[in-house]
Amino acid sequence: DYIAIRPDWTVREVLDFVRENGRDSESLDVLYIVDAKGLLIDDVRLREFLISPLDKKVSELMNDSYTALEVTDLKESAVQVFRDYDRVVLPVVNSQKFLVGIVTIDDVLDVVEQQDTEDIQKFGGMAALDFPYASTKIWDLVKKRAGWLIVLFVGEMFTATAMGYFEDEIAKAVILALFVPLIISSGGNSGSQAATLIIRSLALGEIQIKDWGMVLRREFYSGIMLGVILGTIGFIRIFAWSFFSDVYGPHWFLIALTIGFSLIGVVLWGTVTGSMLPFFLKKCNFDPATSSAPFVATLVDVIGLVIYLSFAVMLLRGTLL
Amino acid sequence: DYIAIRPDWTVREVLDFVRENGRDSESLDVLYIVDAKGLLIDDVRLREFLISPLDKKVSELMNDSYTALEVTDLKESAVQVFRDYDRVVLPVVNSQKFLVGIVTIDDVLDVVEQQDTEDIQKFGGMAALDFPYASTKIWDLVKKRAGWLIVLFVGEMFTATAMGYFEDEIAKAVILALFVPLIISSGGNSGSQAATLIIRSLALGEIQIKDWGMVLRREFYSGIMLGVILGTIGFIRIFAWSFFSDVYGPHWFLIALTIGFSLIGVVLWGTVTGSMLPFFLKKCNFDPATSSAPFVATLVDVIGLVIYLSFAVMLLRGTLL
Repeated sequence: DYIAIRPDWTVREVLDFVRENGRDSESLDVLYIVDAKGLLIDDVRLREFLISPLDKKVSELMNDSYTALEVTDLKESAVQVFRDYDRVVLPVVNSQKFLVGIVTIDDVLDVVEQQDTEDIQKFGGMAALDFPYASTKIWDLVKKRAGWLIVLFVGEMFTATAMGYFEDEIAKAVILALFVPLIISSGGNSGSQAATLIIRSLALGEIQIKDWGMVLRREFYSGIMLGVILGTIGFIRIFAWSFFSDVYGPHWFLIALTIGFSLIGVVLWGTVTGSMLPFFLKKCNFDPATSSAPFVATLVDVIGLVIYLSFAVMLLRGTLL
Repeated sequence: DYIAIRPDWTVREVLDFVRENGRDSESLDVLYIVDAKGLLIDDVRLREFLISPLDKKVSELMNDSYTALEVTDLKESAVQVFRDYDRVVLPVVNSQKFLVGIVTIDDVLDVVEQQDTEDIQKFGGMAALDFPYASTKIWDLVKKRAGWLIVLFVGEMFTATAMGYFEDEIAKAVILALFVPLIISSGGNSGSQAATLIIRSLALGEIQIKDWGMVLRREFYSGIMLGVILGTIGFIRIFAWSFFSDVYGPHWFLIALTIGFSLIGVVLWGTVTGSMLPFFLKKCNFDPATSSAPFVATLVDVIGLVIYLSFAVMLLRGTLL
């Protein structure tokens, strides 16, 4: 319900019309000016009529340009139009520019909130819920979560395969196994940070697909720096422990080097993978929010193990291995 | 900038006043009725004046109740007031109910978006950025991420300690080490799903701290079901492989059982931890979004390893161990 007026009316006629017909209108923020056929030709804020002399013509207040949604627009793009044009209400027209109704911003606020909830749930590695948590049946909670959990589980099975290739090395130096969770979780954490950043920036339109080169460069440097920070901490930790105990044996220095270099490699790999996958998925028309987490987790864990154990083989051959 | 009117005016006087003074007003959606001292006594939507006879008194349109923000209100709670009362503009009063200004919903839409971005970034395990990605300096990107990455890294060091207690068992049965990433990532994934769900529901007010018992019950059952699903897949995988290869040796059935039961235990632990920590952190006045991810990751990984390797010791003692 909205007020449509004609260009040849005076301000006084408009206000009289509003007084007679405005009671059922959802919003009086903007009045819509239509021609004799009902086609939208302009939108003028009601405030213009309130602050103009009563004998001015509607046509004198018009600027012959308006912002409208089309009935075929998606809710998501409607949100963007409200934001870009700073409106609280927008007209909706069909493909012939015939005015069919209005949409107010409260509807949009709910859509924004719902969209963000979906993005957050998808990013947490699950299908978006259809209802609030407390009113979702337990079985539906399980169904929404089981799908991705199974996909992730099957993906992570490759970690066992990857480690299988290094089974002999692990048997010779069990100490290598002890650091596996530490190393792969560092890769996973840096990957999930990078993916979070990029997915949100893409969703807000702060960056576009074409910016992938700029992002790659920035994330490469960030990944190196973060890797050096964690690698140094890991190195110092083993170095320090070796003063007080014999837990790392005589080759503690080589072990410390292995952990340090592996962390640089794994954190760099995690950061670059986490930042590039959202671009790749968006390019392939997948929703980056849905699909990044599992791909990042699997790629980072599997390749991270290979990076770690390859460094170990290189650095420890002839001593521990 | 807003329009404040007096209760003894007529509708015609109000509209004349608006015509004279409305040009600078940010919003004409609602007019504010103040007494002789400037204290806010009511808010009436402009549409009431537009659809009422010109000789009606303002006092006849009043209902002596209004919704206002206080100058001391936080932006976050202001968002909730707009939502609850379905407004596009709200008056702001000081502690003496003196009208000091108005706030429009466009400001709020930005706040909602910014809040959600912060929550998403915090949940991704990093400090919220102050600026959009592309305009943040690389060094600032590193600083915002290094803090949590170091906290997580130090927390995850306990995984090496936990595995150290089982070093002899791993040396005897290296096959156990191969499944470590698979098992702890399943715990981490189910924990992060549960934490995501609960953090968002708490943020939207769908559930409160007092609902923790209901959530615990639901997540306990969800965790059991999800654990049984993954445990069964893990069991079948080892079972099936053992038909075609000798990779798991003669005790493949016990290994399959160990993996199956461990997955049930680890997924249940992850789900319960992930769902309960946000309540605990909120109760302690920490922001659940900031702090849950690292705590869940560390608790789930460390305890998950202990669960897995304890099952292994119980089931494989006398055979592999």
